[in-house]
Amino acid sequence: MCEAAVFLDREGELEKVMDDVVEIKPEEGKLLLVDVFGEQKLVSAKISQVELMDHRIILRESGPS
Amino acid sequence: MCEAAVFLDREGELEKVMDDVVEIKPEEGKLLLVDVFGEQKLVSAKISQVELMDHRIILRESGPS
Repeated sequence: MCEAAVFLDREGELEKVMDDVVEIKPEEGKLLLVDVFGEQKLVSAKISQVELMDHRIILRESGPS
Repeated sequence: MCEAAVFLDREGELEKVMDDVVEIKPEEGKLLLVDVFGEQKLVSAKISQVELMDHRIILRESGPS
């Protein structure tokens, strides 16, 4: 299986958002995370970095643009 | 192993950018893709969607902001 832990980068501090995530997709200007169990979480962030060897995906907060 | 094919979404048309990608990270305002062999590719895009069950990551072009 290929799943990843998703972290939010808060100015260098990594805060775990969700484990065992298999899908991330844009929804209503936010990101919808879905884990292996089908649990969903909607976060205001963008995908910054993907590290599949470490099973890790890093998000950053959507700044005011 | 956990690797993914990376596609660029060009107005609904998916164009393959790179196979067997294991890492994507921001670099100089662009995205650096790295595959299992260590090959690198720098693209002007943002990460839009991650589908780990399908081993697929979808980018979209960085629009003028």
